Amino acid sequence: MTASQKYILTLSCPDRVGVVAAVSGFIAQHQGWIIEAQHHSDELDQRFFMREEILAASLAISLEQFREAFQSIATEFQMDWEITDSAQKKRVVILVSKSEHCIYDLLSRWQSGELDIDIPCVISNHERFRKLVEWHDIPFHYIPVTRETKEAAYEKVMQTYDAAQGNTMVLARYMQVLSPQMCDRYRGQIINIHHSFLPSFVGAKPYHQAYARGVKLIGATCHYVTEELDAGPIIEQDVIRIDHSDTTADLIRYGKDIEKTVLARGLRYHVEDRVLRHGNKTVVFR
Amino acid sequence: MTASQKYILTLSCPDRVGVVAAVSGFIAQHQGWIIEAQHHSDELDQRFFMREEILAASLAISLEQFREAFQSIATEFQMDWEITDSAQKKRVVILVSKSEHCIYDLLSRWQSGELDIDIPCVISNHERFRKLVEWHDIPFHYIPVTRETKEAAYEKVMQTYDAAQGNTMVLARYMQVLSPQMCDRYRGQIINIHHSFLPSFVGAKPYHQAYARGVKLIGATCHYVTEELDAGPIIEQDVIRIDHSDTTADLIRYGKDIEKTVLARGLRYHVEDRVLRHGNKTVVFR
Amino acid sequence: MTASQKYILTLSCPDRVGVVAAVSGFIAQHQGWIIEAQHHSDELDQRFFMREEILAASLAISLEQFREAFQSIATEFQMDWEITDSAQKKRVVILVSKSEHCIYDLLSRWQSGELDIDIPCVISNHERFRKLVEWHDIPFHYIPVTRETKEAAYEKVMQTYDAAQGNTMVLARYMQVLSPQMCDRYRGQIINIHHSFLPSFVGAKPYHQAYARGVKLIGATCHYVTEELDAGPIIEQDVIRIDHSDTTADLIRYGKDIEKTVLARGLRYHVEDRVLRHGNKTVVFR
Amino acid sequence: MTASQKYILTLSCPDRVGVVAAVSGFIAQHQGWIIEAQHHSDELDQRFFMREEILAASLAISLEQFREAFQSIATEFQMDWEITDSAQKKRVVILVSKSEHCIYDLLSRWQSGELDIDIPCVISNHERFRKLVEWHDIPFHYIPVTRETKEAAYEKVMQTYDAAQGNTMVLARYMQVLSPQMCDRYRGQIINIHHSFLPSFVGAKPYHQAYARGVKLIGATCHYVTEELDAGPIIEQDVIRIDHSDTTADLIRYGKDIEKTVLARGLRYHVEDRVLRHGNKTVVFR
Repeated sequence: MTASQKYILTLSCPDRVGVVAAVSGFIAQHQGWIIEAQHHSDELDQRFFMREEILAASLAISLEQFREAFQSIATEFQMDWEITDSAQKKRVVILVSKSEHCIYDLLSRWQSGELDIDIPCVISNHERFRKLVEWHDIPFHYIPVTRETKEAAYEKVMQTYDAAQGNTMVLARYMQVLSPQMCDRYRGQIINIHHSFLPSFVGAKPYHQAYARGVKLIGATCHYVTEELDAGPIIEQDVIRIDHSDTTADLIRYGKDIEKTVLARGLRYHVEDRVLRHGNKTVVFR
Repeated sequence: MTASQKYILTLSCPDRVGVVAAVSGFIAQHQGWIIEAQHHSDELDQRFFMREEILAASLAISLEQFREAFQSIATEFQMDWEITDSAQKKRVVILVSKSEHCIYDLLSRWQSGELDIDIPCVISNHERFRKLVEWHDIPFHYIPVTRETKEAAYEKVMQTYDAAQGNTMVLARYMQVLSPQMCDRYRGQIINIHHSFLPSFVGAKPYHQAYARGVKLIGATCHYVTEELDAGPIIEQDVIRIDHSDTTADLIRYGKDIEKTVLARGLRYHVEDRVLRHGNKTVVFR
Repeated sequence: MTASQKYILTLSCPDRVGVVAAVSGFIAQHQGWIIEAQHHSDELDQRFFMREEILAASLAISLEQFREAFQSIATEFQMDWEITDSAQKKRVVILVSKSEHCIYDLLSRWQSGELDIDIPCVISNHERFRKLVEWHDIPFHYIPVTRETKEAAYEKVMQTYDAAQGNTMVLARYMQVLSPQMCDRYRGQIINIHHSFLPSFVGAKPYHQAYARGVKLIGATCHYVTEELDAGPIIEQDVIRIDHSDTTADLIRYGKDIEKTVLARGLRYHVEDRVLRHGNKTVVFR
Repeated sequence: MTASQKYILTLSCPDRVGVVAAVSGFIAQHQGWIIEAQHHSDELDQRFFMREEILAASLAISLEQFREAFQSIATEFQMDWEITDSAQKKRVVILVSKSEHCIYDLLSRWQSGELDIDIPCVISNHERFRKLVEWHDIPFHYIPVTRETKEAAYEKVMQTYDAAQGNTMVLARYMQVLSPQMCDRYRGQIINIHHSFLPSFVGAKPYHQAYARGVKLIGATCHYVTEELDAGPIIEQDVIRIDHSDTTADLIRYGKDIEKTVLARGLRYHVEDRVLRHGNKTVVFR
């Protein structure tokens, strides 16, 4: 156990008097030192959301004991809940196609330790980034995708992901529409970066769409992948100003800066268990 | 003629060698001192756009003479062109409903001279702002609009606008869909502020739509009104960050700040002849 | 008591295990429904900050009883604490000079109910806005300030503020440096909008300073006033992009939009008891 | 000569009637097709700035002939001027220390062709990035710098830069203060990224300074290096929002995203000859 090891408790439940008191009372009773705490009450749905970072070393009981003892509170308040251990890094499998900006950016953040994850492997439908990825001592799997081989290819992607014990799949400009089966199987695990400010410009060539419409800002959206194209819960978005003098090529270039930043932020929120799904929306405790 | 009086030449034409040389040669020949100059070549459509601010006092010929003499260049290069005089203030008629933020903001900018326009009158379908407007010594016309009286009401709006010799109509959160006839008659004169980052959330209750979709930024769009709802050429847009804790009421409140700023910027660009329409898009020479 | 009436509990204390448990246990025990809750642990200073919005109608005890009963917890944890009632609107006295943008903006927000405050009076060293203010049925006090009469003038300002039972003083581009005595007497009550992105460009003519330095963004800062000029705790800041083509006059014009927005946000945080001072910094629970 | 090869003419001169006419007349006379044109008149200093992108293939004369023929106009109008050829890539030497974000980002943009430059070598006072750089087939020079060896080390840096025929030196978080001699010798060639929104927080540990002051936004500044620390002409700046919950470590992490983006933008403006120096300021024709 290191000095900075943390347990992260996230939960949601029907809102009622006494939730915070019960949870914080339980943590205090076991000497848990809370480093960070965030709450959210959804007025419309009367649902309560909570995230607590507890210093692992402060807790008088083990994680297993916490899980066992907390169950009665969870049951009483009908909680969806989870407690994770920061020492167990998330295993993030990156899927990439031919665009360089997101993969370089993620590798840079991983290499410096800023992004505190394991990358068990990178999967691509092109060979382009094999050397770069392998230079970082990360296994690289080339799984080509054609219209005809799509089903088999996705099967292989899933096998590779499972074999790598992945628990988060990042589509770092993968440019392929996943099968409904895959979306369903890994619900809440697949993170995509879409190169528009959703819900504007769903689907293919969003920068061309943006150029045609004459918008004055373009954006990018990091979201969970669901069966419906580009319609999953949004985790993070950002925009950048453009003007009439910018061609589609300029939009693409500007957009890359937003895409990689938004993806990195969204991924960090996800791996730090800061994102709680609520229907097709997200609660993001930054 | 004051020291700061300016003539503003705007034009567009098929792009070819020699346009700038011809125009700037003409201006130089008549001693015109260019304060500000902007060009834009649309590569796709091979069309050229230009805006020049000429110090009125520097020009050796009158505005009438300029117009006459310039015609041969305009014809040679097949120009759409116009030259306006900053001493002739635009006559801006404001249409407002019950929201206060845009009307207060426009009056504030007009009162201080920041927005260098005439406001011959304000038209509203509610009496709410009569006193405020009249306190500023601006005529206020109450023209109620109901489903049944819509046609007659719009007829009266047009009469009032024409009688006021308006050349710009600002929908400062007017909340009424204009008739196709009106859109057509005053093409390029009607400026609307829509309370979303278009093309997201067209139509009614955009903040409710934004809340339902769970976006992480909301925006506002200033655009020319055309027959198709919220689909006219965009002049200016901006956004503001929100998060899960914001209710629809919060979105509305945050949105107001963006709306009034974006409308004021867009209107300024328009009245300073900085906006050139190009199909359903705009060239904005800021 | 209205359905939306709230009590707002704010506190800070040395950080230790059990603070949240004690406070939330107390509130739950008295049936308090928490609408909004925010915590912050300052790692460096080991100090804990908390803000809770409690639905007034849900609480089984009166505000007086809450205050009395809570004292033992407050003492045990060495808390600085306060509980306020949203039904008791803050009394905000606005000081203004000759710039129109902030005063129009504040009046607009107050008039629409967006800014839920009382404005017992406006004080100015110029007559310029008397009519506008009085048109809103707010008393206007003209208190001229010259180099010679400064002391007497400030004395009169303080008397006027006290007589109006003000508890917040807003310098809405008042353009006068207050006396140390005033700063001290109303510590934590006086809010200023400075027209630069502090700590850049302290003091006079910040836009001229920004122009001379050639910065690419300009900003505004809302802060509590302290003895040291423009050095008090910062509540809110924002910036806007400029470029080489913008003159000092353009900077001033762009800056106004930022100033009024930043002041309005900062003031709202203050009157909703969202700002907790921590040395020369602020914790802002948005 | 490729279809996209361009000549870029940049100039500045005392402002007077006829500059644009003379320049554009000259270009038109030689059949030059202008792709992009920007002007700026500095009112205060009565100085005129201009940048024209001419399609190389359109010009009826060679670059050498252009240079010769244009000289008479340049003399007449007392121009500082230059015409460059986009086919001659800028030779950019990168100096780096131990921070990874800028070097990864620049390599990514260079590798994809987004940043159209040659990188003849990378110089560092640490071995950390040798492998990454060499993997990209770029020579890496380790030149350690200590307090005692500083003079000799800088001598070696200059020799290496000269030997590599560098014409732009990028301090990509190099973290060393260059000698006045170096600043002077390569005036207008050295680009630094400073991790604060200058002029705030000059010098060492700006994020710690920002944290201590309690600002609500942090920024980064790309500027030309001059003798005076962090006081050279600013090319580009940007900011990001933070709040009370962010530690200095968080500021450093957020700041990296701004630093690399601002550096990349500033460098692009520089290598595309979009930056004209004007005293201690810049005209940036984006």
